[in-house]
Amino acid sequence: MSAAEEKNTKSAEPRSGRLSRFASRLLAEWKRLSLPLKDERVIIGVSGGADSVALLLALDELLEAGRLGLSLTVAHLDHGLRTSSPEDARWVEALTHRLGYEFRLERARVKELALNGRDNLEQAARRARYEFLSRLSMEKGEARVVLTAHTLDDQAETVLLRLLRGSGAEGLAGIEPVRALDGQSNVLLARPLLGWARRSQTEEYCRARHAEFRLDEMNEDEAFARVRVRKRLLPLMESFNPRVVETLARTARLLREDAQALDKLASLLLDEARALSAAGVCALRVEVLAGAPSGLCRRALRLWLAEERGDLRRLEMVHLMALERLLAGERGGRVVELPGGAKVSRSRGKLFFHAKGVENGGDHD
Amino acid sequence: MSAAEEKNTKSAEPRSGRLSRFASRLLAEWKRLSLPLKDERVIIGVSGGADSVALLLALDELLEAGRLGLSLTVAHLDHGLRTSSPEDARWVEALTHRLGYEFRLERARVKELALNGRDNLEQAARRARYEFLSRLSMEKGEARVVLTAHTLDDQAETVLLRLLRGSGAEGLAGIEPVRALDGQSNVLLARPLLGWARRSQTEEYCRARHAEFRLDEMNEDEAFARVRVRKRLLPLMESFNPRVVETLARTARLLREDAQALDKLASLLLDEARALSAAGVCALRVEVLAGAPSGLCRRALRLWLAEERGDLRRLEMVHLMALERLLAGERGGRVVELPGGAKVSRSRGKLFFHAKGVENGGDHD
Repeated sequence: MSAAEEKNTKSAEPRSGRLSRFASRLLAEWKRLSLPLKDERVIIGVSGGADSVALLLALDELLEAGRLGLSLTVAHLDHGLRTSSPEDARWVEALTHRLGYEFRLERARVKELALNGRDNLEQAARRARYEFLSRLSMEKGEARVVLTAHTLDDQAETVLLRLLRGSGAEGLAGIEPVRALDGQSNVLLARPLLGWARRSQTEEYCRARHAEFRLDEMNEDEAFARVRVRKRLLPLMESFNPRVVETLARTARLLREDAQALDKLASLLLDEARALSAAGVCALRVEVLAGAPSGLCRRALRLWLAEERGDLRRLEMVHLMALERLLAGERGGRVVELPGGAKVSRSRGKLFFHAKGVENGGDHD
Repeated sequence: MSAAEEKNTKSAEPRSGRLSRFASRLLAEWKRLSLPLKDERVIIGVSGGADSVALLLALDELLEAGRLGLSLTVAHLDHGLRTSSPEDARWVEALTHRLGYEFRLERARVKELALNGRDNLEQAARRARYEFLSRLSMEKGEARVVLTAHTLDDQAETVLLRLLRGSGAEGLAGIEPVRALDGQSNVLLARPLLGWARRSQTEEYCRARHAEFRLDEMNEDEAFARVRVRKRLLPLMESFNPRVVETLARTARLLREDAQALDKLASLLLDEARALSAAGVCALRVEVLAGAPSGLCRRALRLWLAEERGDLRRLEMVHLMALERLLAGERGGRVVELPGGAKVSRSRGKLFFHAKGVENGGDHD
């Protein structure tokens, strides 16, 4: 029996017409996030774990019930990290065909990517996944939305990992429910489970739909900080507050809104501070920046450096704090050196950016 | 031998003239916080624990070395919670007299305060302590600064307790290093150990000064969430990041700066939104608020409610979110009810505050 026939058979089954609670909540969140309801192609990343299988099945439920009118492409990246990974890929492919959707597979050599690059294994796997999804969305000119199945639990784990690492509001804001997939396209990356679904609910929903899901042994390996957060830190925190996962996700949302407000205002502050020097070089007026609250000033400086350097790579809080001291005039010197060789100098009430190798930028010790 | 004689004896001891590292760091922080260097009376709360004893001894070291020129009053509140508490009070009194400073004692019945009021035991104890310090500072017209010995560890514990409870940036900003002691006076409440001293360092410094300190068995009682944070949660988090206490304190500082920036901007937004209605009632223009980023709008609403109601008692995030829906026009109704009976209504593009019992404020169901 072909996939299309299976699909037809499945559609012909008697259906109650009532949505499951899981699918209803997905639909409510889908609308809240203003995701397209019909006539669009949507790409969904499916690893085979309970979260992504539940998202796929719930979308299938909404499509079958006529509550959404979208075309689905299921994307699976075989990370090549485990001997069982080709099996996972075949399993996701079979499920996808049984449901009657398009399936796309790619194989990556994440271990080699991690060895050759600056990423660790988790980062390299993550980068490979998003690059695959990005390529797919561009290849399919019509796909405007890419979905991943991050849950409330992922959000709480991310917030705690960033708290342990020492992030400010940006980091503690956690995973965004919707963002641009990358700088080059208009494709949205959306996480429609992030705001409400617990991992236990995705497992329950899979069971209720009589669907298997794959277990990833990396999710059990306590060599990974994320696994220790899940298996040790969160359970201890639940002994203080049984709803700590929801609580952390809510805090992330509040901090995300704060960071967004501050970023917007910092961009206005930066525009106000810009001044053309005699030589036509863009500089920043110290008096404008120094008069602003510290939280705003620091963000304006970061925005400025991102523009001037092209990125924020290796820029740490210590560098921003050195710039703040430069603004306050607290420092003997009038130059702050940035990682990678660029510098910022203060002269006649203005800050100047010097790219690496440009103006006294190459010969310092 | 009288206290004054003891003091004289002690001053006559040969002194190296070099400050201990602990006292040097205290002096650096003292200057960073712009606390007065001389000719002022300072009140210091001393429980008898290592933190407050170390702060007292380090101030004594700085005074003896002539690096500060202040008058000290040592204040001890006997909470009456433990059978050993009168003994603690006598111990702090003896230490204070040996050092040659003024000693003030008060006894509170914290258990009764907690039973009669809405506070739990910890809250009632805290309230009694600050009320005692506040009374002392007012009685001594000349005392402009009150000190408590909160450390980096207290800051980390506070941040985690608030995280567990679900605070936004204001809560996660933790304990402030300097703030007004209360609304009625110009007295500063300062925590000169908060930004740098670990609890282990206060204990070390006490030992180096051959000083005893008292142990508070409530600090060992895991019935208190703070004790469980200290004895279980923080050690687990240190297994991820050995400097997690410092890391949490730094995050608190970043979030405090963000919250301060947002509060300042929210106050400007509120002023911009104010409009006099025909009846001379102060209202807020919806278009001004609704156009602002959410993090800012919510703070402006909170400021406004604090002004109109006199306080923010029992006001929760749900009420602010209901007001935001009112602004967005998402709600069927045009009225939001606040705890305690006051209301906010929306009419002709403006928000109006209705105190309890004023205008349709008493007879709703």
